Amino acid sequence: MQHQIMGYDRTSAIFSPDGHLLQVEYAEKTVRLGSSSIGLVASDGVVILADKRVKDRLMISDASAKIYEVDSHIAATAAGILSDARVLLERAQILAQQHRVTYDSPVDAESLVKEIANVKQAYSQYGGARPFGVALLFAGIDPDESRNLFVTDVTGNYFGFRATAIGENDEKIKEMLRKDYKENLDIEGCMNLALDIFKRVLGKGFDISRFEAAYIGKDKTFKRLVGDDLRKFLK
Amino acid sequence: MQHQIMGYDRTSAIFSPDGHLLQVEYAEKTVRLGSSSIGLVASDGVVILADKRVKDRLMISDASAKIYEVDSHIAATAAGILSDARVLLERAQILAQQHRVTYDSPVDAESLVKEIANVKQAYSQYGGARPFGVALLFAGIDPDESRNLFVTDVTGNYFGFRATAIGENDEKIKEMLRKDYKENLDIEGCMNLALDIFKRVLGKGFDISRFEAAYIGKDKTFKRLVGDDLRKFLK
Amino acid sequence: MQHQIMGYDRTSAIFSPDGHLLQVEYAEKTVRLGSSSIGLVASDGVVILADKRVKDRLMISDASAKIYEVDSHIAATAAGILSDARVLLERAQILAQQHRVTYDSPVDAESLVKEIANVKQAYSQYGGARPFGVALLFAGIDPDESRNLFVTDVTGNYFGFRATAIGENDEKIKEMLRKDYKENLDIEGCMNLALDIFKRVLGKGFDISRFEAAYIGKDKTFKRLVGDDLRKFLK
Amino acid sequence: MQHQIMGYDRTSAIFSPDGHLLQVEYAEKTVRLGSSSIGLVASDGVVILADKRVKDRLMISDASAKIYEVDSHIAATAAGILSDARVLLERAQILAQQHRVTYDSPVDAESLVKEIANVKQAYSQYGGARPFGVALLFAGIDPDESRNLFVTDVTGNYFGFRATAIGENDEKIKEMLRKDYKENLDIEGCMNLALDIFKRVLGKGFDISRFEAAYIGKDKTFKRLVGDDLRKFLK
Amino acid sequence: MQHQIMGYDRTSAIFSPDGHLLQVEYAEKTVRLGSSSIGLVASDGVVILADKRVKDRLMISDASAKIYEVDSHIAATAAGILSDARVLLERAQILAQQHRVTYDSPVDAESLVKEIANVKQAYSQYGGARPFGVALLFAGIDPDESRNLFVTDVTGNYFGFRATAIGENDEKIKEMLRKDYKENLDIEGCMNLALDIFKRVLGKGFDISRFEAAYIGKDKTFKRLVGDDLRKFLK
Amino acid sequence: MQHQIMGYDRTSAIFSPDGHLLQVEYAEKTVRLGSSSIGLVASDGVVILADKRVKDRLMISDASAKIYEVDSHIAATAAGILSDARVLLERAQILAQQHRVTYDSPVDAESLVKEIANVKQAYSQYGGARPFGVALLFAGIDPDESRNLFVTDVTGNYFGFRATAIGENDEKIKEMLRKDYKENLDIEGCMNLALDIFKRVLGKGFDISRFEAAYIGKDKTFKRLVGDDLRKFLK
Amino acid sequence: MQHQIMGYDRTSAIFSPDGHLLQVEYAEKTVRLGSSSIGLVASDGVVILADKRVKDRLMISDASAKIYEVDSHIAATAAGILSDARVLLERAQILAQQHRVTYDSPVDAESLVKEIANVKQAYSQYGGARPFGVALLFAGIDPDESRNLFVTDVTGNYFGFRATAIGENDEKIKEMLRKDYKENLDIEGCMNLALDIFKRVLGKGFDISRFEAAYIGKDKTFKRLVGDDLRKFLK
Repeated sequence: MQHQIMGYDRTSAIFSPDGHLLQVEYAEKTVRLGSSSIGLVASDGVVILADKRVKDRLMISDASAKIYEVDSHIAATAAGILSDARVLLERAQILAQQHRVTYDSPVDAESLVKEIANVKQAYSQYGGARPFGVALLFAGIDPDESRNLFVTDVTGNYFGFRATAIGENDEKIKEMLRKDYKENLDIEGCMNLALDIFKRVLGKGFDISRFEAAYIGKDKTFKRLVGDDLRKFLK
Repeated sequence: MQHQIMGYDRTSAIFSPDGHLLQVEYAEKTVRLGSSSIGLVASDGVVILADKRVKDRLMISDASAKIYEVDSHIAATAAGILSDARVLLERAQILAQQHRVTYDSPVDAESLVKEIANVKQAYSQYGGARPFGVALLFAGIDPDESRNLFVTDVTGNYFGFRATAIGENDEKIKEMLRKDYKENLDIEGCMNLALDIFKRVLGKGFDISRFEAAYIGKDKTFKRLVGDDLRKFLK
Repeated sequence: MQHQIMGYDRTSAIFSPDGHLLQVEYAEKTVRLGSSSIGLVASDGVVILADKRVKDRLMISDASAKIYEVDSHIAATAAGILSDARVLLERAQILAQQHRVTYDSPVDAESLVKEIANVKQAYSQYGGARPFGVALLFAGIDPDESRNLFVTDVTGNYFGFRATAIGENDEKIKEMLRKDYKENLDIEGCMNLALDIFKRVLGKGFDISRFEAAYIGKDKTFKRLVGDDLRKFLK
Repeated sequence: MQHQIMGYDRTSAIFSPDGHLLQVEYAEKTVRLGSSSIGLVASDGVVILADKRVKDRLMISDASAKIYEVDSHIAATAAGILSDARVLLERAQILAQQHRVTYDSPVDAESLVKEIANVKQAYSQYGGARPFGVALLFAGIDPDESRNLFVTDVTGNYFGFRATAIGENDEKIKEMLRKDYKENLDIEGCMNLALDIFKRVLGKGFDISRFEAAYIGKDKTFKRLVGDDLRKFLK
Repeated sequence: MQHQIMGYDRTSAIFSPDGHLLQVEYAEKTVRLGSSSIGLVASDGVVILADKRVKDRLMISDASAKIYEVDSHIAATAAGILSDARVLLERAQILAQQHRVTYDSPVDAESLVKEIANVKQAYSQYGGARPFGVALLFAGIDPDESRNLFVTDVTGNYFGFRATAIGENDEKIKEMLRKDYKENLDIEGCMNLALDIFKRVLGKGFDISRFEAAYIGKDKTFKRLVGDDLRKFLK
Repeated sequence: MQHQIMGYDRTSAIFSPDGHLLQVEYAEKTVRLGSSSIGLVASDGVVILADKRVKDRLMISDASAKIYEVDSHIAATAAGILSDARVLLERAQILAQQHRVTYDSPVDAESLVKEIANVKQAYSQYGGARPFGVALLFAGIDPDESRNLFVTDVTGNYFGFRATAIGENDEKIKEMLRKDYKENLDIEGCMNLALDIFKRVLGKGFDISRFEAAYIGKDKTFKRLVGDDLRKFLK
Repeated sequence: MQHQIMGYDRTSAIFSPDGHLLQVEYAEKTVRLGSSSIGLVASDGVVILADKRVKDRLMISDASAKIYEVDSHIAATAAGILSDARVLLERAQILAQQHRVTYDSPVDAESLVKEIANVKQAYSQYGGARPFGVALLFAGIDPDESRNLFVTDVTGNYFGFRATAIGENDEKIKEMLRKDYKENLDIEGCMNLALDIFKRVLGKGFDISRFEAAYIGKDKTFKRLVGDDLRKFLK
């Protein structure tokens, strides 16, 4: 509270006396207020499962998707302020297209992630704008066939994972993943595991119509699953 | 109140300690202070009905329209600060014209909506200007014959709907829509339903001269209805 | 008062917690502190009558006019900060001239009004400058012979009217207009009505030398009336 | 005082809750702290008489003039911050020269006054700089032989006069002018009147060496009077 | 004090409620904290005598001069912040050189003074920088043989003099000059008078090694005097 | 505390009354909150050992490296905000590549370090952004075969070392280095020493999987060591 | 304290009510917190002796030099924030190189000093950045064989000396120099004197390994002395 009264938390352009960036820490809370997503590297591809929370029967899922096709071989989702995410992911889409045009080959996921993370870093250092209030999870298959999963945080750091989660309850979900995830799970196995984890975490709140999934398999083609297509992965 | 005294709500460029964007939340209140509009996808087109609230006999409806013809195949209306809306919708009109000139075909509604939503996102992140205090509702028929309804909120998110409402009493109206809207309603049926909902919501305050409607049918041509033309849809 | 202490009213770039733009509301008070003007659409033209309040015998009316000739077919006047008005109306004059040069035809009033209203909107959203503290009333005859009357408010909204008023006592005057204005009044009838209304509103304060009038008739030519030329319309 | 504590008076970029621009009102006080000048339209020209207040015997009047020759046919003086005035009047000089070069004819006074007034308006609306703390009085003979007198105030308004005053005691002086000024006074008569008014206003403080005068006669040539040249107009 | 608590004195970009520019007034105090200089117009040239205050035996007078050669026919000195002065006087030097190159003749002193005064005016009106905390005294012989002495103050005003002083005790010195200065004094007489005045003002503090002088005679050539060269003018 | 209440610590653009830059000092605390790294010059190369602290079994070390290959002959690591470090080190990578392209030879380490230090200096002087919250440690072999170790601090200073440490416990580690480091240690010996020091400092917390190392030997080629490759250097 | 509470010391862009620039005065304290340097003009060259304070046996003196070779004929050192100094001295190095390229001759020291002083002046007048917290001491031999010593202070003033000191205890050291420095001392004599003064000032704290010296002799070539090379000048 002391640091709030003193105003160290009014801009990402100042440090608190103990060396913290409070605005950035608040933005991290925004991320944890967001609905969760799980990303997993499967033996034959990559998988994302995202909770959308909303279930208005008049809303159209296609036009309100939470998982983005950054390029045919890279999927991404977000936790936090979704309009912030859209702006960053549209930038990623353009970077991916430019790479294809310039080098005549798909971009590798880490290059893309690094560019987006640099944008986020800048907004955690300069005044006059707030940090991006969003964590992004990228999953893709690179031209060298490696399957990758990256998460960028609010400060512009990024890390590579075999399986991880962002948003509400992320620590709880990551704990389950550390226990149950195995590297030999295939896409179907990953999908089963992710849905099972959400069932355990949400309990009565679990409702398959709240979810949206996407995977990229050996053909390096982005595929989205909703409704009945997704339901059949429920064990 | 605590957060107000601490000043977390003075610019959209800072997060509150619990991860909220208070200026953006205030702008959402502005939207709910605005008069309401209903948008519906009909079996043969799209329909917007807008409450203008004013009924000065000396005011001229044509020159004070609340529903905009963004392009012949896309209509839009707004709730909140109407001058903010006009500025954004004029930008949409220009984007639509540029698309026609560049690609020799009409723009699809979602591309347009995304551009406008990006503008709104920027004003929810940078200091030095307030967020746009307006929700926009777009209804259109795309070149591929799909009928679409989108709403952009104050943060720059957008969602697709079969039927929805913006402005004052939006939750109440959406509840009625979820109950009474059916996908097989044609333009006339949608118009009847929307007028009926407003009658129920406004009670004694209902007055057909406060309203303005527009629809786009199979000929993909924007048509506006006021006064007696609109009255005949009252059951 | 609470909102004033909290500082929500120091710039047009922030919303108050209840979704208001207080600086813009203060600017509207400035407008109501200004001397009033009445605009009317006549059966054979358009009419503006403006109260100038000042009556220094050493002041020269020509060089201190309150009604502007935007173009030969469009007149305009203002309530509020008159130097703000002059800057906006000079911009309108230039736009009108550019239209004549570019399209070889006079501009229609609404296009002009929209451009000026957009400038006002920007100053109600950005920090670093105050909103324009002025309401503008435009009266003109379009190339298609339609007679138009528009008012732009402080936020950058504009509305079309048959007859209306801006400035001090505007609500009182509009009430009288709603009662007494008829669409079949010709220029002379409109001038009589407007002068009569001012007599009723100002009572003893009424003095013909405080007023300035202008009208545009079928010949689409701006004509200004002061002194004895105006006095003869007093019944 | 309340509005001062609340900070409504710290920049010309905000309105007070009752719709006032307090910084602009303070700047008007600066003007009234300045030494006075009188301008008059004579039957055969225009006249300015300016009080310089200072009377250091070591100061050189030529190089410390208070009346400017804007162009050979236009004179100007100021009340308030004299360095602000110099900057504005140098701009006027350049505009006048540009007009001569571009159109091969002298500029008319009102065009010039309008340009300078627009600069002043901008500084009454934007933050980051204070308003110009100066009232300017222009007197000139136009190419069409009309004799003109204009005053621009701090907000960027301007008005035309037959005779008027700016600076300290302006209201008192204007009252005397309204009583004693006659349109048939020639240059000599105007000079007599202006000096007489200053004698009455300053009483014992009156000292001819404090004053500087200028007039433009039928030959449209600026002439400056100080010392004995001026003394002979004292009756 | 009241105005200080209210913050009217934090930038030159605001007026106090009584129409003062407090930052500018503070800058004037800086000037009066500076060591003094006397300028005089002699019958055969112009003279400046400057008190440098410092008398470190290890300091080198040449490389720490307080009187500048702006051009061979114009000398200048300053009171206040000497680095501010240097920046302004280097600008004057460049302007003088540009004039020689462009017009193939030396610049007249007043043109130069006006340019520098305009720079100072700007810093007394805009925020984001402080006013120049320096008074400048220019002495020169113009191409038309006139001998000139100008002082620019902190607001950007300038005045012409026969003899004057800036800095500490300026009023006291000016009083003595008004009493003892005569227009028929030659360079030597002016030098005698200026040294004599400093002896009277400084009393025991007077020490010839603290002083630096410069004069420009009929040959229009800047000459600097220090140490013994200066001592011989002591009577 | 006094200086915090007075606000001297809110931006790197102001000094405290005792001449300190408090924001910069806070940023130095951020550096000490970061996990530590040790750099050493070996008789046959240079060595860096970095503690990454994290040990999530699902995290992939390659894609979350803490030691950067700036160029094949220069390695670098950081303590503090790692996204800040990445942005600075990517700039260093580009500078190194440009040097190769421009001069057809590898850049020397000090030139690179100086450029990066200059960027840091700027952020310790200007407002509107916070200082970079990171210390960087560079180790490289120059074209002239000299082996170098540099550390840049938060203010933009840099120093050369034989062996040093950054981050948490840096003073304690440097003390051990001053005692145990010898210039004749080869790469293996340096690796042994650095691991041994971390064992002593972390005690029970020591876990080889937390660490990452890199060295550059006589072949001037960057080599990274993790997991078992690093474990074999544990004595 | 009063002025601190009132905030006159938060930026170099405002004057305090008594005409002081408090931020600049604080920056001067930073200079006095810095370790000291002595500069001397010898009969056969110029000499600088600098205390580096640090004596970490693992630090490398070459790569942490405190005396800069600005050009082969000009040396410089600093007291205060050393990264500020480096940025300014690199600018000086570039200016010196540009002079050699443009005029095919070495730059004279005062031209260089003036340019750097102008940069410092700007940072003492504008807001948005702090003043440079550093005093610089330049020593050089000009193309005309004159030997020069200059010091620039925080405000951007500069002065020439025969011998002087900057940093901690500067007044005490200057007192000793005024007593003991003689113009006929040669480089060796100056070195002896400077070392002797530091021995007297530091007492027990004196340690030759803390020092770094440089001199420029008749060959106009910069030479640096550390360790044993410097020790032999100790008497």
